[in-house]
Amino acid sequence: MTPLKLSPLSPTEFPNMPSLAGVELATAATGVKYKDRDDLLLMVFPPKTNLAGVFTKSSTAAVSVHLSKQVVQSNIGRCLLVNAGNANAFTGRNGDQSADSILSYLSKISGISQKSMMMASTGVIGEPLDDSLICLHLNKLWESKGTADWQQAANAIKTTDTFAKASSHTIYFDDQPVHICAIAKGSGMIAPDMATMLGFIVTDAEIEPSLLQKMLTQINAKSFNAITVDSDTSTSDMVILAATATSKVKISSDAGAGELAEKFKTSLRLVMTDLAHQIVKDGEGASKFITVNVKGAISDHSAHIIAKSIANSPLVKTAIAGEDANWGRIVMAVGKAGEPAERDKLSIKIGGILVAENGQKSDGYTEAMISDHMKSNTILIDVDLQLQNGTSTVWTCDLTHDYISINADYRS
Amino acid sequence: MTPLKLSPLSPTEFPNMPSLAGVELATAATGVKYKDRDDLLLMVFPPKTNLAGVFTKSSTAAVSVHLSKQVVQSNIGRCLLVNAGNANAFTGRNGDQSADSILSYLSKISGISQKSMMMASTGVIGEPLDDSLICLHLNKLWESKGTADWQQAANAIKTTDTFAKASSHTIYFDDQPVHICAIAKGSGMIAPDMATMLGFIVTDAEIEPSLLQKMLTQINAKSFNAITVDSDTSTSDMVILAATATSKVKISSDAGAGELAEKFKTSLRLVMTDLAHQIVKDGEGASKFITVNVKGAISDHSAHIIAKSIANSPLVKTAIAGEDANWGRIVMAVGKAGEPAERDKLSIKIGGILVAENGQKSDGYTEAMISDHMKSNTILIDVDLQLQNGTSTVWTCDLTHDYISINADYRS
Repeated sequence: MTPLKLSPLSPTEFPNMPSLAGVELATAATGVKYKDRDDLLLMVFPPKTNLAGVFTKSSTAAVSVHLSKQVVQSNIGRCLLVNAGNANAFTGRNGDQSADSILSYLSKISGISQKSMMMASTGVIGEPLDDSLICLHLNKLWESKGTADWQQAANAIKTTDTFAKASSHTIYFDDQPVHICAIAKGSGMIAPDMATMLGFIVTDAEIEPSLLQKMLTQINAKSFNAITVDSDTSTSDMVILAATATSKVKISSDAGAGELAEKFKTSLRLVMTDLAHQIVKDGEGASKFITVNVKGAISDHSAHIIAKSIANSPLVKTAIAGEDANWGRIVMAVGKAGEPAERDKLSIKIGGILVAENGQKSDGYTEAMISDHMKSNTILIDVDLQLQNGTSTVWTCDLTHDYISINADYRS
Repeated sequence: MTPLKLSPLSPTEFPNMPSLAGVELATAATGVKYKDRDDLLLMVFPPKTNLAGVFTKSSTAAVSVHLSKQVVQSNIGRCLLVNAGNANAFTGRNGDQSADSILSYLSKISGISQKSMMMASTGVIGEPLDDSLICLHLNKLWESKGTADWQQAANAIKTTDTFAKASSHTIYFDDQPVHICAIAKGSGMIAPDMATMLGFIVTDAEIEPSLLQKMLTQINAKSFNAITVDSDTSTSDMVILAATATSKVKISSDAGAGELAEKFKTSLRLVMTDLAHQIVKDGEGASKFITVNVKGAISDHSAHIIAKSIANSPLVKTAIAGEDANWGRIVMAVGKAGEPAERDKLSIKIGGILVAENGQKSDGYTEAMISDHMKSNTILIDVDLQLQNGTSTVWTCDLTHDYISINADYRS
C-alpha cells in the first residue's frame, strides 16, 4: 500500500524529552511485518520499580494483556517488551506459546525472571506470531539496552500511526526534580484491525504501588478512557506506569504528604492528557480535533455516557467533517444516550456560541455566527443538561472519506 | 444538492399491494422542504379500529411521538397525519404549538376529535415547522381521502430514502381473507431502538388492543429493533399498527383462539421483517446487506448486544465495504461488547465457511474460500459463543464513502 499521509493535526516536531535515569531503552527491527523500521522495543527498569497498569476490558483480550496484568498486580516487573505489527490476539494456544517462547528466551539472556516480564503486542489480529523471528534479535536488543532514546522508542511501537507520540513533564519538589516521560501509539488511523492504543509512562519518583495505581486509574478515566476515534475497542490496549525510585523524591499517601501527591498527579494528568490528545489527532482520517464537554448531568458517569454518545455518533462526526453546524444531530445523540435529559432545559454551544436552549434554536443564533469555527480544525461542543452537577469531557475526531479509504481499501 | 442515487440493494419494483377496505389514504405536496413531490400523508381509519404502537426511547423525542403515544394508549385513534422533511423535534414550545395548530385545524375540517389524531414528523431536527404551510393543504387533503394508493403513501413519507418501502401479506382463515398492508421510511439515523424510521401497518382483522400491542412489541424486537445502519437513534421513530375490523375475521387471545393468533402473527412478522430489511437495503451509502447471527450466548439479550456490537462496528462495516474477510475485527467487536465470551470456545463463520475456532484461525481456512462471498452483495456472519443457548439476529449494511458523502454534504 502507499504510505499513509501525515495527519493534518500532527504536532510540528517530536517533543524534547528529559533524560530519566531509571529506565534503559533499546529497539530492533525484526521484519515480522514492517520492512526497514524498528518494530521491537525493550524497556528495562531497576529492581525497586513500582508498577501500575490499566488494561482493555475486551473479553477477547490478547495474551500480552493477561501476562502484563499479572506482573503489574504482583508488582515485580523488571522489563517490558513491545512488538508492533502483530497483536498476537486470537491466535489460540499457539499464540500463548509464542509469547512464552519469547519471554523465556529473554529471561535466559537477561537473567531476569520470566515472571517479572511484561509484554505488549499490537498489530493484526488472528495471524500467528513468529516467535523465532523475534528471538533472533533478543541478544542484540538486550546488549544494546540504554542506547535508544524516547523518539526511537516511540517510533518502534507505531503500527500505522502517522507520527510518533511522546510527552514529558518535570516537577520540582524543593529543587529536587522528578521526571515523567511517556510514549504512546495508536488510535484508529492506524491499525485498521483495531483501535489499538498502548501507553508507557515512566517516572523516577518513588511511589508506593497502591498510590501509583490509584493515580493511574483516576487519570486514565479522564484521559485515555475519554477519547474515541471510532468506538471500536481493541484486544490489546494497555497503559503501564512505572515509578523507578531513582530520583530523591518519595511520594506517599501518608498523612501530610497529600500536597506532594497532588503536585505529581497534576503533572501526570498533563502528560497523559497530552498523549491522549495526540492519539485523537492521529485518528484515522481525522481532519478536526473535537472536544465535547457535558455538564449539568445527574452524575459524572451519566455525563460521560452522553459525551461518548455525541463523540461516537457517525452523524455528528460526518456533519463536522462537512463543516456543517448541524446541532440537531447533537440533540439526537443526547437523546439516544439513554440517560436523563429534559428537552426544555438542555442547552448547546458550538465554539462558545449558544445555538440551542429552552428546547429549541436559540434566539438570535444564525449559522454565520459559527461558520468560521466550523472551518477551523479545533471544534468545541458544550452541552448543559441543567439537571444536576455531573460533568465529563471526551475528545474525538471527525469521520471523513479518509477513514473509509484507510479501513475499506487497506488490506491488513 | 444532487439527487441521491438509487440504492444498489433496492428491490426491482414496488410490491403489489392488496386493497384494504379499512383505511383511506391521501397525499399532498406542501413544499415545506422538498419541491415537486408529495410530503404529506393522511391515513383515516374507521371508528372500530384498534391500535398498537412502539416509539423511540430517545429522551429528546419529538412532539409527534408524545402525541401519537397518547392516542395509541387510549386506543381512540381515527387518523394519522405524516409530514416529511421537518421532524418538528427540538423546536420547543413553538414546535408543540405548530403540531397543535395543524391537528386542531384538521379536526375542524374533518369533525374528528383532535384527541383521536396521531401525527408523525420526519426530517431535519431543530428547524421550526411552518404549520400554516401545512394547514393550507389540509382541506384538499381531507377531501381527497381514499384517492391515494400505497405507493403514493410510501413515497410521501420518504426523506433520504432512495426507494419507497412497502410490504403486504394476505392470510386466509376458513376462506375469509385478512390483509396486512404496511409502509415504512428510513435510511440514516437508524439503530435498534426505533430508528429514524416510521412504519405504518394496517390490517382489516378485528384484534383486541392488548393482543395487538403484544404482537407488535414482540415482533418489533426481532424486526425493526434488530436493524442498524449507523448506530444513531432518532428523535422521531414510531411504528403504528392499526386493526380496522373491516374484515369478517376476529382474532382474540381467548382460550382456543391461539392458532388464529399465531397464524396472523407469522404473517405480521413476515411483513415487518421485510420492511426492516428494506430499510437496511436503503441504508445511507449501503452496498451490501449483512446478516449477523449470534448463538451460544448466555441469554438472548446477551446475544443481541454482541450482534449489535458487530453490526455497529465501523471497522467491521468498512472491512465488508472493502470486500475484505477481516475476521479479526469480528473478534474485536465480540470482545468489546462487554458480554461473556471465551476465546477458546468462540467460532466464526463467514458465508457459511468456518474461519475461526478454538481461539484461532480455523485449520484449512484460506481467504480464497470466501472471496466470492465477500464480493457478493449479501454477507452472512455466524458467531457461536458455545456458552449457552442465547441467540439473536441483527441486520445491517456496510459503511462506505457514500455514507460520508451523504452525511457530510447534506443537511438531513
